[in-house]
Amino acid sequence: MLPDSPFRSPAQRAADRAAKRDAVLRAAVRMFNERGFHATSLDDVATSLGISKRTIYHYLASKDQVLLECVTIGLNQLLDAAAEARTEEGSGRARLARFLRRYAEINMDDFGRCVIRTGEEALSAESRPRFRALKRQIDSALRQLLSDAIADGTIAATDVRMTAFALAGALNWPARWHDPSGAMPPDAVAATLVDVLLRGLDPRPVPGPAHSPSERS
Amino acid sequence: MLPDSPFRSPAQRAADRAAKRDAVLRAAVRMFNERGFHATSLDDVATSLGISKRTIYHYLASKDQVLLECVTIGLNQLLDAAAEARTEEGSGRARLARFLRRYAEINMDDFGRCVIRTGEEALSAESRPRFRALKRQIDSALRQLLSDAIADGTIAATDVRMTAFALAGALNWPARWHDPSGAMPPDAVAATLVDVLLRGLDPRPVPGPAHSPSERS
Repeated sequence: MLPDSPFRSPAQRAADRAAKRDAVLRAAVRMFNERGFHATSLDDVATSLGISKRTIYHYLASKDQVLLECVTIGLNQLLDAAAEARTEEGSGRARLARFLRRYAEINMDDFGRCVIRTGEEALSAESRPRFRALKRQIDSALRQLLSDAIADGTIAATDVRMTAFALAGALNWPARWHDPSGAMPPDAVAATLVDVLLRGLDPRPVPGPAHSPSERS
Repeated sequence: MLPDSPFRSPAQRAADRAAKRDAVLRAAVRMFNERGFHATSLDDVATSLGISKRTIYHYLASKDQVLLECVTIGLNQLLDAAAEARTEEGSGRARLARFLRRYAEINMDDFGRCVIRTGEEALSAESRPRFRALKRQIDSALRQLLSDAIADGTIAATDVRMTAFALAGALNWPARWHDPSGAMPPDAVAATLVDVLLRGLDPRPVPGPAHSPSERS
């Protein structure tokens, strides 16, 4: 086929289709984040793109599938960040810090924000297991990075499960409070939060927190 | 009026009314937390109490009012915890730790869980300002407790705003992951999370985290 042919090649058609599907997902995720999933209809999404709801159905079967695709994109971004961090040079602590900063940044971006804002109950019973399975993989990747940093002595030995929950919670929360149009850019928020959190994981010469007795009283 | 009169006094009638209203809110908040706000109807809430939806309307005007009352109860529990912590004996750090543990425990209880699981977008435009105003008060109370602990030298000087966000996020998250029927009771989860987080706020003899240069690379 000549480059100036009016007929598109199968590869061009596939790319065109993928670009249109992506545009629908991007428009949808922004509306879900802004108004909430339940307050957004596929008609609203279609209108914002200047197309009809019937056109959306060429690419995505239902509003539930749109949401599942949106959270899957966000969760895959988090998994990619974990895979990248694991291949980095440097200490276990440096790899952990790298992942945590990316994790926070993704949660302030469109698809990651949707992951955090979406409760399982918004998804259909059929879609929930995939959402849960991906979240479990990310939790497991975080625990592995924590264990590696404990193993090479660059963070303190700590309760890996609870520390993972504390870190994830602190770095999920910007999906609720960070204003994308605000003064502090996502990478600065991420770096500051990770600094505050990692200080708590510094290796210690003496075992046990210094202030436990008075705190417990 | 005699104690065995079949007629109820005004005080008894008011108490009776308050108890019925509370029962409706308790049943509603559990369903909101379990199924999600949008998937719960006031008919479902009424059925679970063996009453009709019309009976609910004697006590609460709308589903939006039910949600607003539920989150207001949770937010007031958090504000009470902050007020209590401020009057405690001991160091700034001990008062902060006390508040943070209660904060986490409340977020694992019915009404606190609803505060965290409810996005602003679920509330009507009229109800949102009250929700936001109460959340701002709690944020402000947490920042004050942090500032007090920095002032008396029992935690490190730190970015109060970002530290408040990190602490709140880490202690909000159990509203999503903690299983009330699970093995670890809320007070143990709260104490462990707060220990992990407060270690990061220990006063430091030398300024700056030990590992910053490698983490930034």
